[in-house]
Amino acid sequence: MSGRLTIALDAMGGDHAPDMVVAGAELARVRHPGVDYLLFGDEQRIVPLLANHPALRDITTVIHTPDFVAADAKPSVALRGGRNSSMRRAIDAVHDGRAGVVVSAGNTGALMAMAKIVLKTLPGIDRPAIASFFPTLRGESVMLDLGANLECDADNLVQFAVMGAAFARSVLGLEQPTVGLLNVGSEEQKGHEPIREAAARLRVLDLPLRFEGFIEGNDIGAGKVDVVVTDGFTGNVALKTAEGTAKFFSELLRRTFQSSFLARVGYVLARSAFAKLKARTDPRRYNGAMFLGLRGICVKSHGGTDAVGFANAICVAYDLAVQGFNDRVKEEMSHLHPASGPGSETVTV
Amino acid sequence: MSGRLTIALDAMGGDHAPDMVVAGAELARVRHPGVDYLLFGDEQRIVPLLANHPALRDITTVIHTPDFVAADAKPSVALRGGRNSSMRRAIDAVHDGRAGVVVSAGNTGALMAMAKIVLKTLPGIDRPAIASFFPTLRGESVMLDLGANLECDADNLVQFAVMGAAFARSVLGLEQPTVGLLNVGSEEQKGHEPIREAAARLRVLDLPLRFEGFIEGNDIGAGKVDVVVTDGFTGNVALKTAEGTAKFFSELLRRTFQSSFLARVGYVLARSAFAKLKARTDPRRYNGAMFLGLRGICVKSHGGTDAVGFANAICVAYDLAVQGFNDRVKEEMSHLHPASGPGSETVTV
Repeated sequence: MSGRLTIALDAMGGDHAPDMVVAGAELARVRHPGVDYLLFGDEQRIVPLLANHPALRDITTVIHTPDFVAADAKPSVALRGGRNSSMRRAIDAVHDGRAGVVVSAGNTGALMAMAKIVLKTLPGIDRPAIASFFPTLRGESVMLDLGANLECDADNLVQFAVMGAAFARSVLGLEQPTVGLLNVGSEEQKGHEPIREAAARLRVLDLPLRFEGFIEGNDIGAGKVDVVVTDGFTGNVALKTAEGTAKFFSELLRRTFQSSFLARVGYVLARSAFAKLKARTDPRRYNGAMFLGLRGICVKSHGGTDAVGFANAICVAYDLAVQGFNDRVKEEMSHLHPASGPGSETVTV
Repeated sequence: MSGRLTIALDAMGGDHAPDMVVAGAELARVRHPGVDYLLFGDEQRIVPLLANHPALRDITTVIHTPDFVAADAKPSVALRGGRNSSMRRAIDAVHDGRAGVVVSAGNTGALMAMAKIVLKTLPGIDRPAIASFFPTLRGESVMLDLGANLECDADNLVQFAVMGAAFARSVLGLEQPTVGLLNVGSEEQKGHEPIREAAARLRVLDLPLRFEGFIEGNDIGAGKVDVVVTDGFTGNVALKTAEGTAKFFSELLRRTFQSSFLARVGYVLARSAFAKLKARTDPRRYNGAMFLGLRGICVKSHGGTDAVGFANAICVAYDLAVQGFNDRVKEEMSHLHPASGPGSETVTV
C-alpha cells in the first residue's frame, strides 16, 4: 500500500452513535496517524462532535446522509430502502475507491447484505464469512464463519480456511498459522459429510498453513489452533457460548470476592493483578468482526460498544488494509484454482 | 417404584476402572442405602477391591465377564464382538429386568450403540438423545442432544424438548421447566428449517413445560432456560466450548493469583471463599450424561473421572429410576400422539 489510507465510518450505526464513533475515531487517530476519515451520517449531529477534536476534524470529511439503517431492520428491507443510508454510502465509498475500508457498528444482517451486493466476492470465494478473534491460553485465535452462512459445503469450508489463515498472517502476525475444523471428535470418520470432505482436501492442498485436522469445542479456549473453521450456525453458537461462560465466571468471581470479609480484603490485595486479567479478557479488545471474502474490507463493530471498542474495530480494519489482506487471499485462491477458467469450479483432491 | 432398586455397573469402563467404580459405588451406597449392585467385569480384579468395603460387598453381586470394550473401539466393532463384554452384560441386565438402571464410564459410542440395540426406544421416540446438566448463574440447566444425533429433524427436536423437560422435573425438581431451542438469534425467522418447524410446534402443544422460543449461546451460561434443546452436533460443540472456556478462566485465575506477592497473599485470604466457587463448578459434580429415550435408563460417566465423579453418575441414575423418568416421558408422549396408531407419525400443528 502506498499513500494515506482512508477509512469510511458509518457514523449512525451502534447504540451510542454518533458520539462513540467520533470519540473512537479520535482514539484510533492517535494510534495510526497516517489515516483520513470519511464520516457518513447526520451532519447536524456529527459536526458539533468534531468541534471538540480539531486534529480529527482536520483529517475528516463529513458526508451528510439523510437516512440510516434501524438496528432491527430486516436485511432485505434495508437493502431496498437504504440506498441513502449512512451505512450504504460508507460501503459505496469503498466500492468507488474513495476509502480503503469501512467500519460500522450498525445492524449486522443489513451490513452483510449491503456489503455483498455492493462489493461482491473475491475471485474463487463463493460466500463471504464473518470472522473474529479472541483470547486463548496460548495467545489469540480467529474463528469463522460466525453467522453469515448457516449451512456450508466443503468448498465454503476450504475457502474459509484460506481466508482465516490469511487473516492470522495479516492481523495476528503468524507466518504459518495452524488451522482446525470444528467437529464432535478428532477421529477421521467423525462428523458429517461436508466437514469430512473439507478435511480430506485441506490435508492435500499446498497452502501456507498447517492443517491440524479436526478439533473439538474445548480446543478453542485452549488455543490448539490459530484458525478455527466452522459453519456459521455452529460458529455463532460456539462464540456466544464462550461469551456466556466468560460472563458466568466473571459473575461468580465477583460474588466470591464479595462473599466474606477476608475475601474482600484478599481482593484489595490482588486488585492490580486482577486489573491485568480484566484487560486481557476485555471484550472491547476483541471488538471487530471482519467480513472476509469481499472485494473490499468491511469490519463490523459490536453495536453496544463504546469509543474504546470502536477504536479497536477501526484498528483491525487498518491492519487488514495495510497488510494487504485481500491481495493475500486472491494470491492464495489462485493457487487453489490453478486453471481458474470457466468450468474449473472445484478443487481436485 | 416399590422395593429396592438394583443398579448395574460396568466395572471395566473408564480410565481408572475397576478401582474407581468400586470406590464410587461405596460413596453412592452411603448416600442411597436402599440400593443393590450388580458389578460386571473381571472378578479376579473386582473381588479383592470389594474386600475393603464389606458393607458394599453385602449388597453387591459380581458377575464375571471375560471381555470388555476398549476405550477406542469403533461402536460397530463393539456391537458385533462385545456380546460378553462387561458393558453389554450390564445393559442386558436392565433389559432382563434384573437391574433398574445401568452406569458405565466406558466408550460412549459403543455404549449408545449397545443401549439402542438392546433396550430400544420408548414409544413415540424416534431417536435417543444424550443429555447432561451444568451450572448456570440461575442454578442448573440441562442440555440435549450432546452428540447422539448429528443431524435432527423437527420431530427429533420436539421429542428432545419433552424428554429434557421430564428430566428437569425428575432430577432438577422443577415443576414447569422452561425450554429453549438453541439458535443464532431470537427472532422467529432465524435459523434453519427444522428449528423453525420445531419452534412452531412447541408453541402450540399442550405440554407441562413453558416454551421460551429461541435462545442464543450466551443464554446457556446465564441460565435463561432450564432445558436447552439442540441437535447433537451443535450441543456437543457448545458443551465442550463452555468446558474449554471454563478451563481458560480457571487457568487465568491461577496465573493471576501467582503473578505477584500481593496477589498470593490475597489468595490466601480469599482461599475459603474460592473453595466454595471451586466446589460449585467442580466437573465431577456434573458427571453423568444420560441417554434419554430408551426403554431402560443408561447413564454414561466421564471416562476420566474418579470415585467422587462416578458416585455422582450413580446418583443421577438413581434419581432417574426413583422419580420414574421413563414413565413421565411415556405419559407425555402419549399426549403428543393422541391417536398413536400406525400412520399417525407426526404431530398436527
